[in-house]
Amino acid sequence: MSQQLVVGIDIGGTNTKFGIVDRRGTILCDGRMLTNQHEDVACFLDELHQHLAILIEQVGGIENIKGIGVGAPNGNFYNGNIEYAPNLRWKGVVPLAQLLQDKFGLPAVLTNDANAAALGELIYGAARGMKDFIVMTLGTGVGSGIVANGQLIYGHDGFAGELGHCIVIPGGRFHPGTGAHGSLEAYASATGVTNSALELLKTRPDTQSILRDHLLEEINSKVIYEAAMKGDPLAMEVYEFTGQILGAALANFVMFSSPEAIVLFGGLTKAGDLIMKPVREHMEKNLLPIFQNKVKLLFSELKESDAAILGASALAWEMKD
Amino acid sequence: MSQQLVVGIDIGGTNTKFGIVDRRGTILCDGRMLTNQHEDVACFLDELHQHLAILIEQVGGIENIKGIGVGAPNGNFYNGNIEYAPNLRWKGVVPLAQLLQDKFGLPAVLTNDANAAALGELIYGAARGMKDFIVMTLGTGVGSGIVANGQLIYGHDGFAGELGHCIVIPGGRFHPGTGAHGSLEAYASATGVTNSALELLKTRPDTQSILRDHLLEEINSKVIYEAAMKGDPLAMEVYEFTGQILGAALANFVMFSSPEAIVLFGGLTKAGDLIMKPVREHMEKNLLPIFQNKVKLLFSELKESDAAILGASALAWEMKD
Repeated sequence: MSQQLVVGIDIGGTNTKFGIVDRRGTILCDGRMLTNQHEDVACFLDELHQHLAILIEQVGGIENIKGIGVGAPNGNFYNGNIEYAPNLRWKGVVPLAQLLQDKFGLPAVLTNDANAAALGELIYGAARGMKDFIVMTLGTGVGSGIVANGQLIYGHDGFAGELGHCIVIPGGRFHPGTGAHGSLEAYASATGVTNSALELLKTRPDTQSILRDHLLEEINSKVIYEAAMKGDPLAMEVYEFTGQILGAALANFVMFSSPEAIVLFGGLTKAGDLIMKPVREHMEKNLLPIFQNKVKLLFSELKESDAAILGASALAWEMKD
Repeated sequence: MSQQLVVGIDIGGTNTKFGIVDRRGTILCDGRMLTNQHEDVACFLDELHQHLAILIEQVGGIENIKGIGVGAPNGNFYNGNIEYAPNLRWKGVVPLAQLLQDKFGLPAVLTNDANAAALGELIYGAARGMKDFIVMTLGTGVGSGIVANGQLIYGHDGFAGELGHCIVIPGGRFHPGTGAHGSLEAYASATGVTNSALELLKTRPDTQSILRDHLLEEINSKVIYEAAMKGDPLAMEVYEFTGQILGAALANFVMFSSPEAIVLFGGLTKAGDLIMKPVREHMEKNLLPIFQNKVKLLFSELKESDAAILGASALAWEMKD
């Protein structure tokens, strides 16, 4: 009857967010701290423990807590390690799940943030009760978490589900982070949207656009979104183009795992129908007939501010007892 | 102690092959019949039952048989139906697993041929003991079976794993069967190889090739294979080109499920290194560093003449008791 709560911890490049969550996905209490204040991970854990100990007392003590779930960049589910995360100060391999377990005396399990997002949708969100679905996180980068046969696909090494790095336009746009040409992330991320706008501004000198009132270096996904919301044709075309590429990519993903739904999450989804319409159109157009008009395209039902903690906490519910 | 044998049935467009198989993948006895002799599926089942009853007696009677596995075009694992198979005479939805169960008094389970091939590799072949791998069947068409977390991925509707229909070159070569442009099957199938050769013969009028000794309508994958084996540069370039496209496609598939191995099966693999070398090179080139030099590229270990029966029989071992 006890252990009706779990801890969710989301370690981001800047902030670490943490909270205590019940079975229904209510965050009972939460907090945040800076991730990169401490060069030594032991000091990071000390600070995190201080914060969390207070929250755990608030909810009636540690005997109510089933375990700890962590979403972290380059988090490997199989061994609980963070491996060579470029945006964190702790270098090399950090056995974070083990360190947390030792520190808190609670079982701890870890995965990357997109996989955590998929579990969040499965346990609390738009994919409740589904056995086969894909979550695409469309933010600064493009991440993905894939559930098939009711289980997250981790692959043989724990790194499955890097759909943002699939090549969708062979020889296409350069992606500085990876050196690849034409990967999905080069188009369907915040940076991708910005680059698409910059390209259109250059190649269509005669098309009027309120984006031309900005310095080029001021143009970002937020500015483009606001322009599109005002009906700016060039900004709207950016979403049409982005949706076309994303939709075609989703069709390929459907041919892989034939999901019941694809759940879209993150900044790009704020554009609503402006992005959803072309995504749906170009996904359907590229599907074999047996897959057409079957796959639900959904926006995430989780509040963006809560999603990271919820996703991480979902991992703790999935833990084998 | 009994039930150490299973029946495997492979229903092809022309022939239906069947056999009785032990746990190690030895085919104790087998046979074949024409698939499309009977317009009524009941008559097909009568003939199949006559053939199989003799084989079952040979191995000591029905009490030694655990069940029946069937590989069939458009076979749906979830409901045991063959659904709208274009190459079979039985139209619409045929509840084949149920019909077999009623006829033989044995549990029967069914899937499509590429999924059966994947189970064949899992139980008897190159993927024994693996939890995450992909089988690509490269024959008249391009099929695939995907295993993740030790289970075949069927998707929400039973149709997952149609990787041959992924678009790899947007706007690329037309695929008459589906109307798609640039799908993998348009390049990495027997027909694809033939079309690549015809294209090269046309665009490179100055390149000498023994393929030019043939009438264009005589050129097929067998002729091209023989020319390449003799060192014909144009025929060899066909394999280089095919391997480049297939390798890049496999890289995308790796980004999806991060398999321990990809097992290649079917006619195209006869070319050995001629196809394997460019596939490997272009797969690695298109992978993120975290996936590089990790994925085993293997040829199937199953004899092509046995593989269909073995794959189907593997399905019966996987059956829940």
